[in-house]
Amino acid sequence: MNRVDVCLSPELVHLHDLKGQIVVVVDILRATSCMVTGIAHGVNSIRPFVDKDACGEMAKQGWLTAGERNGKKLEDFDLGNSPFDYMQDFTKGKNIAVTTTNGTVAIEKAKDADEILIGAFLNLSALANYIRLKKQDVVILCAGWKGKVNMEDSLYAGALTKVLNDTHDYACDAPLIAESAYKRMENDLVEAVKNSSHAKRLNRLNVTKDIEFCMRQDEYDCVPKVRDGVIS
Amino acid sequence: MNRVDVCLSPELVHLHDLKGQIVVVVDILRATSCMVTGIAHGVNSIRPFVDKDACGEMAKQGWLTAGERNGKKLEDFDLGNSPFDYMQDFTKGKNIAVTTTNGTVAIEKAKDADEILIGAFLNLSALANYIRLKKQDVVILCAGWKGKVNMEDSLYAGALTKVLNDTHDYACDAPLIAESAYKRMENDLVEAVKNSSHAKRLNRLNVTKDIEFCMRQDEYDCVPKVRDGVIS
Repeated sequence: MNRVDVCLSPELVHLHDLKGQIVVVVDILRATSCMVTGIAHGVNSIRPFVDKDACGEMAKQGWLTAGERNGKKLEDFDLGNSPFDYMQDFTKGKNIAVTTTNGTVAIEKAKDADEILIGAFLNLSALANYIRLKKQDVVILCAGWKGKVNMEDSLYAGALTKVLNDTHDYACDAPLIAESAYKRMENDLVEAVKNSSHAKRLNRLNVTKDIEFCMRQDEYDCVPKVRDGVIS
Repeated sequence: MNRVDVCLSPELVHLHDLKGQIVVVVDILRATSCMVTGIAHGVNSIRPFVDKDACGEMAKQGWLTAGERNGKKLEDFDLGNSPFDYMQDFTKGKNIAVTTTNGTVAIEKAKDADEILIGAFLNLSALANYIRLKKQDVVILCAGWKGKVNMEDSLYAGALTKVLNDTHDYACDAPLIAESAYKRMENDLVEAVKNSSHAKRLNRLNVTKDIEFCMRQDEYDCVPKVRDGVIS
């Protein structure tokens, strides 16, 4: 059996030896859900930036720009951070520069991994099947919220741990804890996430629609990978 | 309402502002379970040390010494790390120097708190009642295992969060996650902890007896406190 481990916060990643492992980066609300949606809908590539100015600069090279601060789309940017922004006709075939904090930090911290994959509920089974075929150990790296653990990424870690049960043993207790929380809540994941602190922070009109979409399982078959900081 | 927060690993404690808060330190297997047991059985005080030599030196001042490495009692030490070692006739009224790693690190990292309490399933309700009377916010600090989250401390965090539901709101998602895992497993906590990675590490004859004892709820009414690094 291979092994599955869960890193509940990027601040704990130094406790894991990522060399030779597959790392699945997850930021359900909403960075990795947007990335999976975009790639599934024909976006050519997505490059995340922590710095919004560096992100905005990419417009000069013909990239679309995406990002929000405090729940509002950045002025002069093309897209916000809703997955629905990533499935428009004009985004097909384009490169998108996106500014996010938690997701980008997590991707950077995964750089020692053999391979970095982008995970979301939207591509749960496709990603699990890909991992099974690779027959490698996997670490699920939750982006969290400013270093703290969060509900939606932890639930995803539990869901993927559960799906991998037949091929991947628990590497330590974190996957067991995440899986237990997931099993407790799997019949009403949307409600669980709506009650989470991040959803409350996102307290605005269209967030319910985004949350409901981000919690859909197996909407897409794609398994986006990170290569040299670019997702495709 | 006051608030309850959970810090699943000492490596995340910098994300919490402990000033003005009550911190509950928990290391179920077995440091804080031993401390609660000892204080309940008339031990005068307990002082934890990371360094086993510094711990051993305390014998010269008339302290009993306690500690294990790799599951074996340290040579020349009076006690091991089993809670049953802390309920003997000759430990009553004594001061005990104990060497533990995870529990001591957690206690040191809690030093900014208004008050530091020692938590275990053994004194769950007594500690919850004490917190309610103080009407303060509380952070449950899990000792974990070498920085990683572990099952038994996370389950305790979930149990205490649940008991405090009527007076303490969730400060962020970690208490929600811990409580969900606890609720999923509360009908067979001993089995859940036996399957945890730490229990497997402790793989030796009398660990089952220790685990079963450490998972008993409300065996004692005492609420040990840490003052200047000494527990009483």
